Amino acid sequence: MRLLKEFDQKNLMEIGQELHRFSTDLYPICRSITGDGIRRTLAAVQGRVRLKISEVPTGTQVFDWTVPKEWNIRDAYIKDARGKRVVDFQQSSLHVLNYSVPVHTKMGLGELRSHLFTIPEHPDWIPYRTSYYQENWGFCVSHNQLETMEDGEYEVCIDSTLADGHLTYGECYLPGHLSDEVLISCHVCHPSLANDNLSGLVVAAALAELLSGRDLRYSYRFLFIPGTIGAITWLARNRDNVARICHGLVLTGIGDQSGFHYKKSRRGDAEIDHTVAHVLQHRAESYEILEFSPYGYDERQYCSPGFDLPVGCLMRSVWGTFPEYHTSADNLDFIKPQQLAQSLRVCTAVVDVLENNRRYCNLKPYCEPQLGKRNLYRPTGGEAIGLEINARLWVLNLSDGEHSLLDIAQRSGLPFPAISDAADVLRDSGLLSVVPEDVAAETQNRKVAGNVPKVTSLR
Amino acid sequence: MRLLKEFDQKNLMEIGQELHRFSTDLYPICRSITGDGIRRTLAAVQGRVRLKISEVPTGTQVFDWTVPKEWNIRDAYIKDARGKRVVDFQQSSLHVLNYSVPVHTKMGLGELRSHLFTIPEHPDWIPYRTSYYQENWGFCVSHNQLETMEDGEYEVCIDSTLADGHLTYGECYLPGHLSDEVLISCHVCHPSLANDNLSGLVVAAALAELLSGRDLRYSYRFLFIPGTIGAITWLARNRDNVARICHGLVLTGIGDQSGFHYKKSRRGDAEIDHTVAHVLQHRAESYEILEFSPYGYDERQYCSPGFDLPVGCLMRSVWGTFPEYHTSADNLDFIKPQQLAQSLRVCTAVVDVLENNRRYCNLKPYCEPQLGKRNLYRPTGGEAIGLEINARLWVLNLSDGEHSLLDIAQRSGLPFPAISDAADVLRDSGLLSVVPEDVAAETQNRKVAGNVPKVTSLR
Amino acid sequence: MRLLKEFDQKNLMEIGQELHRFSTDLYPICRSITGDGIRRTLAAVQGRVRLKISEVPTGTQVFDWTVPKEWNIRDAYIKDARGKRVVDFQQSSLHVLNYSVPVHTKMGLGELRSHLFTIPEHPDWIPYRTSYYQENWGFCVSHNQLETMEDGEYEVCIDSTLADGHLTYGECYLPGHLSDEVLISCHVCHPSLANDNLSGLVVAAALAELLSGRDLRYSYRFLFIPGTIGAITWLARNRDNVARICHGLVLTGIGDQSGFHYKKSRRGDAEIDHTVAHVLQHRAESYEILEFSPYGYDERQYCSPGFDLPVGCLMRSVWGTFPEYHTSADNLDFIKPQQLAQSLRVCTAVVDVLENNRRYCNLKPYCEPQLGKRNLYRPTGGEAIGLEINARLWVLNLSDGEHSLLDIAQRSGLPFPAISDAADVLRDSGLLSVVPEDVAAETQNRKVAGNVPKVTSLR
Repeated sequence: MRLLKEFDQKNLMEIGQELHRFSTDLYPICRSITGDGIRRTLAAVQGRVRLKISEVPTGTQVFDWTVPKEWNIRDAYIKDARGKRVVDFQQSSLHVLNYSVPVHTKMGLGELRSHLFTIPEHPDWIPYRTSYYQENWGFCVSHNQLETMEDGEYEVCIDSTLADGHLTYGECYLPGHLSDEVLISCHVCHPSLANDNLSGLVVAAALAELLSGRDLRYSYRFLFIPGTIGAITWLARNRDNVARICHGLVLTGIGDQSGFHYKKSRRGDAEIDHTVAHVLQHRAESYEILEFSPYGYDERQYCSPGFDLPVGCLMRSVWGTFPEYHTSADNLDFIKPQQLAQSLRVCTAVVDVLENNRRYCNLKPYCEPQLGKRNLYRPTGGEAIGLEINARLWVLNLSDGEHSLLDIAQRSGLPFPAISDAADVLRDSGLLSVVPEDVAAETQNRKVAGNVPKVTSLR
Repeated sequence: MRLLKEFDQKNLMEIGQELHRFSTDLYPICRSITGDGIRRTLAAVQGRVRLKISEVPTGTQVFDWTVPKEWNIRDAYIKDARGKRVVDFQQSSLHVLNYSVPVHTKMGLGELRSHLFTIPEHPDWIPYRTSYYQENWGFCVSHNQLETMEDGEYEVCIDSTLADGHLTYGECYLPGHLSDEVLISCHVCHPSLANDNLSGLVVAAALAELLSGRDLRYSYRFLFIPGTIGAITWLARNRDNVARICHGLVLTGIGDQSGFHYKKSRRGDAEIDHTVAHVLQHRAESYEILEFSPYGYDERQYCSPGFDLPVGCLMRSVWGTFPEYHTSADNLDFIKPQQLAQSLRVCTAVVDVLENNRRYCNLKPYCEPQLGKRNLYRPTGGEAIGLEINARLWVLNLSDGEHSLLDIAQRSGLPFPAISDAADVLRDSGLLSVVPEDVAAETQNRKVAGNVPKVTSLR
Repeated sequence: MRLLKEFDQKNLMEIGQELHRFSTDLYPICRSITGDGIRRTLAAVQGRVRLKISEVPTGTQVFDWTVPKEWNIRDAYIKDARGKRVVDFQQSSLHVLNYSVPVHTKMGLGELRSHLFTIPEHPDWIPYRTSYYQENWGFCVSHNQLETMEDGEYEVCIDSTLADGHLTYGECYLPGHLSDEVLISCHVCHPSLANDNLSGLVVAAALAELLSGRDLRYSYRFLFIPGTIGAITWLARNRDNVARICHGLVLTGIGDQSGFHYKKSRRGDAEIDHTVAHVLQHRAESYEILEFSPYGYDERQYCSPGFDLPVGCLMRSVWGTFPEYHTSADNLDFIKPQQLAQSLRVCTAVVDVLENNRRYCNLKPYCEPQLGKRNLYRPTGGEAIGLEINARLWVLNLSDGEHSLLDIAQRSGLPFPAISDAADVLRDSGLLSVVPEDVAAETQNRKVAGNVPKVTSLR
C-alpha cells in the first residue's frame, strides 16, 4: 500500500478546507469530560467513520480514579442590577468554569470576584478553566469585562446539573493483518477551543476515514476520549489488551501556524519515535523533537511506568508555550486549513512508514548482485549513479534481516519512500525476501506493556 | 537527613572565615611525607574530629614501594661571608628542598648553585621542590634572591635528620547504616602552601565535623595522608577492605578563586561522577568536568587498575595550570574564606545526594495516581503546574525500581533537592515505596574492587 | 618493529619522485577489466614485488556474475572524409569506450553522434566511459573536438577483440607470525587515469616492497585487481579464507592535492577504522572521516552483507566529487610526488599501529609502581612531567588486559608511537606483560566473515 502517494494526488487545500469546516461545526459545542457536549461531538464523528460509543457509569473505579458525576449545562449568566446579562454562557462556552456546580443567587461584586477568572496580560481574552474534582463554581471573563463591572449586586446563575450518569468515549477500530495495533488518541473534552483540540479531533477522524476499508498491515485504533480521565478509563477497561499496541500517537494542537513538535515516548527510541522524526525531517519545513516529559497530554497515561507504551505526541505549538493556549484566542482563526491538511499529510506519511517498514534479507548477500543484467543499473560505466540506484545499493547492503527499511533510510539519509520503492523493485527481481512478521516480532525488542515485574514484586 | 538544608541556614561567610583561620594556624608548619610536621598537623585536626593516628615503620613494604626514613628538620640557612643568613628556613619552610639530607659545610657560589632552585619567570617567588627518593640536599630561593648573591664563600647548613622512624597518617571513620563507605581523601604533606593543600585539609575536616554524630546511610572514611606514599601505604594496609568503598573524592586545591574542576574517576560513569557533575551544574557558578587521567593527586592510586575505585577529584584550579602552583605565591592570600565555604557547601551537597539517592517503586504504576485528591496537585485545571508538581510527576513516572532519584534529576533537568522532596511527599502519601538497600545493591552495577581477575590470571 | 621510524629516516621527496616515475611508466597502457593491458601492468609490479598472477577463464561463474570475455585492442580511430584521423586511440587510451566491440564501417555524423561521449562543461577534456556488460561501441572525445567535426561521412574503426580468454589479477602475499591477514586492495583496470587509480597501485606496490622480507606480526595480502568483477572473482575463489582478514584497506585516488578522506567499513567501529582515524588525526594536515556507504570502490564487495569484512577505503579526493574524476584531466600532472609519498607514509603509519597494537597487563596493578627507582620518572618532585612519563602512566593505568595500545592512545589523546614506546620501556622494566595473541583473539569481538546465519536460514 502506498498511502502517501495516493494522498499526494489529492488537492491539499480542499482537504484543509474540509478539515476546517468540520472544526467550525464542532466549535460552538460546550464539551467537558462528561455529558451531552461530548455525545454530540462523537455523533458528528460517527457521521464520518464507524465509531463504537462506550458509556461508563459514574462511580466506576478506574485504577486510582473514580468516574465522576456527569455534568450538563443549559445556561449560565451574571446579570447586573438592571437585569442585563453582563456575562453570558450563550456567547461563549468558555464563560463558565467547566464542571461548575449549579448556583443561582445574588451577591455583591466583592464576593463574586473570588469566582471570576481573568487574564490581566491579555485583557480581551477569556481564559479556559476547569474544576472537575473540586466542587466549585465560577465564571471566566475577559479582564476588560471585569473592569467594567461596577460595585453593586449581581444575579449569578449556572443552570448546570452534576449527577450520576456516564463518561462517554468513542473508539474506531480498523482491523489489519496483524493483531498488533497502532493507537491514535485525541482528547475531545475541551469546549470552544480550536487548536486544543478540535484540530487533533478532525485530523484523527480524517485519518481514520482515509484508512477505512483498506488492506492494512497493522490494526488501527482511534480513541476520541476526554483527556486524563478518559484515557485512564479506557486503559482500565482494556488493561489486558494494551500489549498489542506497538505504536501510538497522541494528536493535539496541530492546526496552528507553528512548526511541528514531536514529543518522544518515555522509551525514547521506539519505532514510532524514529518514524515521526524521519517523516518530519523529510517532510516538514520546520520541526523540533522533544524529549519525553511526564507532563502534557494523554501520553502521560499511556507512558505511565506500569504501561510504558510506545506512544508519542505530535503537536505544532506546544501546550502552555503560546499565549493563546487555553484562552478564547484559540479560536477558528487560530487554526488554518493549510496547516490542518499538512498535519494530516504528516500523519499519513507516518502510517505509510509503519505499514511498509519491514525487514528484508538480501538473497545474494555475497558481493553485489549484478544489477545491470536486471536493468536495475545505469547502462554506461563511469558516470554517477542517481538516487534510485543508490537506494537499491543501500537496501541490498543492509538487508541482513536485522535492519528495517526505516533503519536503512536513517543510515543512508534517503527518504523512506525511496528506500521502500527500492525494496519493492529488488523483491520483484528476486533479490530480496521479506522477513516474516513472526520472525521479525521475535527479534524486535518489543517490551511487553502492562507488565512491570520489578514494581509488582515489591508491593 | 537534609544536610544541605541545614547547611544553608548557616552563615556562609562565618564558615569561610573559620576555615581560613584553621588554614592560617596550619600554614607555618613544615610538613613533609613523614615526620613531626605531619604529626602536629594531624594533632590540630584531632582537636576537631575523632582521628585515629597510624604510624607505619620505616622499611615497611607497601606494594612496589618502601616506607622511607623519617625526615625532620630543625633549622637550615645559607650564610654569606659576613655570617648573615641570606637564605633562612625560619622565614619559609619552602626554602629547603623537602627531604634534604643534613649538610653543614662551606662552598663557593659556583658549587652552591647546583643546589639552588629558582623560578626565573616569577623572580619574587620561592619554588616548592622535593627529593624524597633520591638523597640530595638543596635550597629553594626566589630568583631575585639568587641574583643578589655575590661570589664568595657561603656556609650552608641543613640541620635535618633522615633516620628510621615512621610514616604517619590520620583516619576519621564515621559509621553509618551501611558498611558501604564513602572515602574522602586529602594530602597533608605539603609545607607552607595554602591552596595545595591546606584548603583540602580544612574542608575535609569541616565536612567530617559536620557529619559526626549523625544518623548516616553510608559509612564515611576521611583520610588525612601524605601524598602518594601515604595513599599507597593506606591501600596496602587496607587492601581487603577497599571493596567497601562505593564513592570517593580526593579534595585538593579548593580554596582559590577559580571555578570548580571535577576530574572523573577512571570508570567515568560512577555514581560519584554523576553526583558531582549534577551538584556543580546546579550549584556552581562556573565549573568544568575533566576526563580521568592517570596524572594528578591520590586518585592516581585509588584508580590504579588493580583497584579501579570510583574516586574522583574535586578541585578549583587544576594542578600545574596556574602560576602560583607549587610556589610561595600559593599563600594565605591565595585562598579566600568565601571560596573555602562554597567548596564545603558543594561537598555537603554531594553528600546530600549520596545519602538520599535511593530507588523507589511507584505503587500506583498504571496511569497517574490522582494527586488532586491527596492535595498534591493544583486546584484549578487549565493553569500551568509549578516545579513542585512537575517534580512529583517525574518521580512517579520514573520510579520503576530502576531509576535512582539522581537519574530522575538528570533526566528531568530538575535539581536533586526538588526531586528528593517530591519523593518524600509521595512516599508519605503512600504512593512510593523505597527499594531496600540489598535489592538495590544487587541491581547496581557495582564493580568489586581489589579484584582484577584478568590481570591476576596472567602472571 | 618500528616501521614508521625507519620510514621517517628516508627522504620523502625521493620516495615521492620514484612513485611518480612508476606512475609515468604505467600511464600510457590501455587497461581494462581483462586483457593484455592489465597483464603488462601486473608485469611491471612483478618487477618490484613477488606477485602471483591468476588467470580466470571467461564464463567462470563468480557469485551472481560471470567472468566476461577478454577484451583487447590494437587500434581505433575516426577518419574524416579526407582520411585524416580526427579521433585517434594512439593519442589517448581514453578515446575508446572501454570494452567496445569491434567495428569498421562508415557513417554520417548524425548516426555517429550516438556513439560519441563528451563533457560539455569541460570542453577540453575527454571523458572515461565503459560498457562492460552491454555490447556497445563508442568514442570518448573532448567537446571541442566534437564541435569541429563537420557533417559528412566518417570512417570508424575499433580494432578490438572480445573473445573467450581470461580475467587476470595479481596477488602479493607476505606471511607473518599470525595467519590473520591484513588486506590491501587496489583496482588496476582504469586506462590512462593517474589518480584513479595509478596512485593506489603505486602506493600499494611500494608498501608491499617495504614490508617484504620483514618479520611481520600479521600476514599481508595485496590485491592488484580489476574493479568490481576482480574483487568479486577473488572473493568467490577465496570464500572460505576471507575470515582470516582482520583488517583491510582499499587504496584509491591518493595522489592528488586534496586532504585525506577515510571511508569507514560497514561495521564502522572496526580496529582499522579506529587505526586510520588515529593516524590521520596525528599525521595528516587535513582529513575527513566518512561514514560507510554502499557506493564507491571495491569496499562495496568486501563489505557486502554476506562478508561484512572490516575493510575501509583511504582516499584523498572522493570519487565523483572533483571535476577531473573519470576524465583526461586526471593525468600525471594531477598527481604529485609529495602527496604520493605522504600517502605511503600514512599507510606505513597504519601498518605500524596494526603491528604494534597489542594488549598488555600491568604486573604491578595495585597503586602505581615506583618508576623513580627504575629511572623512569623525573628526579625532582614538584615539577611537571613530560610526554614520555605521561605516556607511561597512561599505559600502566589502562593495561588491564582489555585496553589495546590504540585504545590507550585514543583515550589519552597521545600519539600511538609515544604510547608504544612507553609500553616497550615498561615491558623491558618488567612492569608489563603482553597478552598472548590467542587470548587476545578470544576477547576480541572479531566477527566471523563469510557466515551470516540469519540470511542463510531464510533462503
